[in-house]
Amino acid sequence: MTHQNAEHPWITLRELLAGGAAQAIEMYLTSIPPDDVARGILRLSQDERQQVLSALSPEAAARVLEQIPESEAADLLEAIAPTDAASIVEELPSDERADILRDIRGPDADEILAEMTPDEAREARAMARYPDDVAGGLMITEYLSFPRDRTVGEVVHDLRANAGRYRGFNVQYVYVTTDGHAGSSLAGVVNLRDLILGDESRRIGELMTPKPTKVAEMTPLDELRGIFDQHHYIALPVVDASNRLLGVVRAVDVEEALRDRGASDFRQSQGIIGGDELRTMPLLVRASRRLSWLSVNILLNIVAASVIAIYQDTLAAAIALAVFLPIISDMSGCSGNQAVAVSIRELALGLVRPSELGRVWLSEILIGLVNGSVLGLLLALAACLWKANPFLGLVVGAALAINTLIAVSIGGLVPLLLKRFRMDPALASGPILTTITDMCGFFLVLYLATAMLPRLAT
Amino acid sequence: MTHQNAEHPWITLRELLAGGAAQAIEMYLTSIPPDDVARGILRLSQDERQQVLSALSPEAAARVLEQIPESEAADLLEAIAPTDAASIVEELPSDERADILRDIRGPDADEILAEMTPDEAREARAMARYPDDVAGGLMITEYLSFPRDRTVGEVVHDLRANAGRYRGFNVQYVYVTTDGHAGSSLAGVVNLRDLILGDESRRIGELMTPKPTKVAEMTPLDELRGIFDQHHYIALPVVDASNRLLGVVRAVDVEEALRDRGASDFRQSQGIIGGDELRTMPLLVRASRRLSWLSVNILLNIVAASVIAIYQDTLAAAIALAVFLPIISDMSGCSGNQAVAVSIRELALGLVRPSELGRVWLSEILIGLVNGSVLGLLLALAACLWKANPFLGLVVGAALAINTLIAVSIGGLVPLLLKRFRMDPALASGPILTTITDMCGFFLVLYLATAMLPRLAT
Repeated sequence: MTHQNAEHPWITLRELLAGGAAQAIEMYLTSIPPDDVARGILRLSQDERQQVLSALSPEAAARVLEQIPESEAADLLEAIAPTDAASIVEELPSDERADILRDIRGPDADEILAEMTPDEAREARAMARYPDDVAGGLMITEYLSFPRDRTVGEVVHDLRANAGRYRGFNVQYVYVTTDGHAGSSLAGVVNLRDLILGDESRRIGELMTPKPTKVAEMTPLDELRGIFDQHHYIALPVVDASNRLLGVVRAVDVEEALRDRGASDFRQSQGIIGGDELRTMPLLVRASRRLSWLSVNILLNIVAASVIAIYQDTLAAAIALAVFLPIISDMSGCSGNQAVAVSIRELALGLVRPSELGRVWLSEILIGLVNGSVLGLLLALAACLWKANPFLGLVVGAALAINTLIAVSIGGLVPLLLKRFRMDPALASGPILTTITDMCGFFLVLYLATAMLPRLAT
Repeated sequence: MTHQNAEHPWITLRELLAGGAAQAIEMYLTSIPPDDVARGILRLSQDERQQVLSALSPEAAARVLEQIPESEAADLLEAIAPTDAASIVEELPSDERADILRDIRGPDADEILAEMTPDEAREARAMARYPDDVAGGLMITEYLSFPRDRTVGEVVHDLRANAGRYRGFNVQYVYVTTDGHAGSSLAGVVNLRDLILGDESRRIGELMTPKPTKVAEMTPLDELRGIFDQHHYIALPVVDASNRLLGVVRAVDVEEALRDRGASDFRQSQGIIGGDELRTMPLLVRASRRLSWLSVNILLNIVAASVIAIYQDTLAAAIALAVFLPIISDMSGCSGNQAVAVSIRELALGLVRPSELGRVWLSEILIGLVNGSVLGLLLALAACLWKANPFLGLVVGAALAINTLIAVSIGGLVPLLLKRFRMDPALASGPILTTITDMCGFFLVLYLATAMLPRLAT
């Protein structure tokens, strides 16, 4: 028996691979916590990952793929034989299947779909076509539905006969359709509990809640959040324009999608773009993705700093100012980022509409007046103490105060404007903000200093 | 009939308040989307909010409080009479009740609890005592449980008799306890569906899955995430050290808590501390909370900039350097923040342990070498083109290259170190990072420049 290394699951996996005991690998991976599955798999080379996957049954392989980030799961499925990939994909829950297929590059996805049963392939293809942040992209297709003319007894009989197949169905409702054909319309919903209480001979059409709350296939995530917040539903049926039942979207999947979006916002605001970055990804992929963001920023920085170059003579005459330029740049960035964060938060909570520019601006101006005055005074004081020159304090304090006002205004408004033009506030707000506030900050210090130069020169 | 103003629900609310029609307010608030409820309420003054709340039935008031952020709901409950607050609190789902009571200041919470029925008050008090990120703080107490010796028929009879009371119970399982006393032990779990299929005369103790997966009351959020990820449970029973059933934690609540934590991380990383900030909060609360963060930052900034002051003579002799100081400061911050974001992400996904400093450091050093070289070359080129002085390019390029290496190292490691010392990586990583990289960056530029001064002086 291989010694299990809890701190380093990938070492155990390598040992098991070397031993060639396929069953032991499956037993090991089902016995350790999911975080360890992910750590274990992701630290292996692409080649070793494939070996592990091919040692597993399709069910076990599907469970492993669910534990690792989707982009990594997609890469792994692309790398193995389409037949093997198809049998693993068939074992995935419908929503995860769609997510992963969406991440697989075109021709590879088609090859995998070609190896699946035609029905499953058609369904998977249809689901993968939805964006991942609308009801259709979030729904699952594992749900219970029966035509309205079935009796409670017949439904219960079906549940009993197919208990095994339905075990993975996570829903507490039975959906009632107008008839038994594929693509029939949604007529109502019966709570599973009400089936217990119902008389065996009654038709479910009589028992159901007619006109149930439902959502259209293209309902966006934020709207879904609102609907689930309001009614505490566990799940809602998803229908197309002709009221055909397509699937079921669960509250838990909506929450998970919101969490993913939040994580993606955070990532993008810190300059990680092009998807998740994991340290197990290839170095050059990681370096070049980070560089694509940094190279835009260095250009913006050079543009902003060119303001300093224009006033080089002033700076040479009052060199003490050079100490304050980075302070004013950084502090304005901090103040502005706070306003950006509040705007992004209020947009996410639906508490502000992108059109309410005036209200946000007024609110930030007031903060800017208070905080700008305090910070300006602090910096003025520091400058006076250092150089015993009140005029130096006046210049840098006034510049910081005014620039704080500018920074919070821009920080509050930019996310709303970006949202209005359907751009991503988390991605672009930061660079836009710091470029403008740097230029304004440098200009303010050096313009004021030029005006007062005789009193500043050292 | 009042004209409903969809864009400005608070205007409609004010008109309805002026009209004094309590029932119309309730009808209006139940007819509009939840985001509009929140926007409508939050834009009212504290006084108007109280008037709206007192016009509503306790059920409707509870639903309104669920739509607005918890801190605001807590403020509102503090402001009204404890009797009224108690009857509203009794209508809240148990988990939301605990969240809000946790936010109410001590004496007010006690006054409200004193007005509740003793059982409810005891339960609420017990739940509010858990931190909000462990199983006990996330669980609900609305669940179905029966002693093991009950028959399926008896359970179904009870479900039928109490159908109304159980309607709000969102769980798909029936929990089976050793006996019928309060605080009896968890023996097993029965899927609601299996009850339908079960023979009326069988005892649920025979039908149940014994030794069900369960979680301890203090199980932390990250561990819950792992357990739910692995098994696709909808909900899990929460037990104390003696295996007494305390409540049920649902997957959807775990997802919601993770989303909240992500939002709080984002907020803190952008300098919004002391909880959520909404623009409907009082100006001075908002300004002073933001200032508490900014004032720490301005001190750190002054410390970092003092490095420039030390090298003032060098700077005066080669004034062109002043243009590059803010660029190097800002770019190092960008590079470092990328590494911070990846570390925070990997920690959240459980893909890195706080002890794996060496691995993270090596991985970031490699990125730093690639990106530092590219960015250093870019900046060197820009400097050469501007001043036609290759030595200026050499100084600023080398400084940026080396400082990028330092920034990604610190950025990768600081979140792990903070986590290890049980501090919040999202809150403190940024200021620590930028202070160190600013100091190093300024030092590198000015130290290298001092060494090459004869070739730089303009």
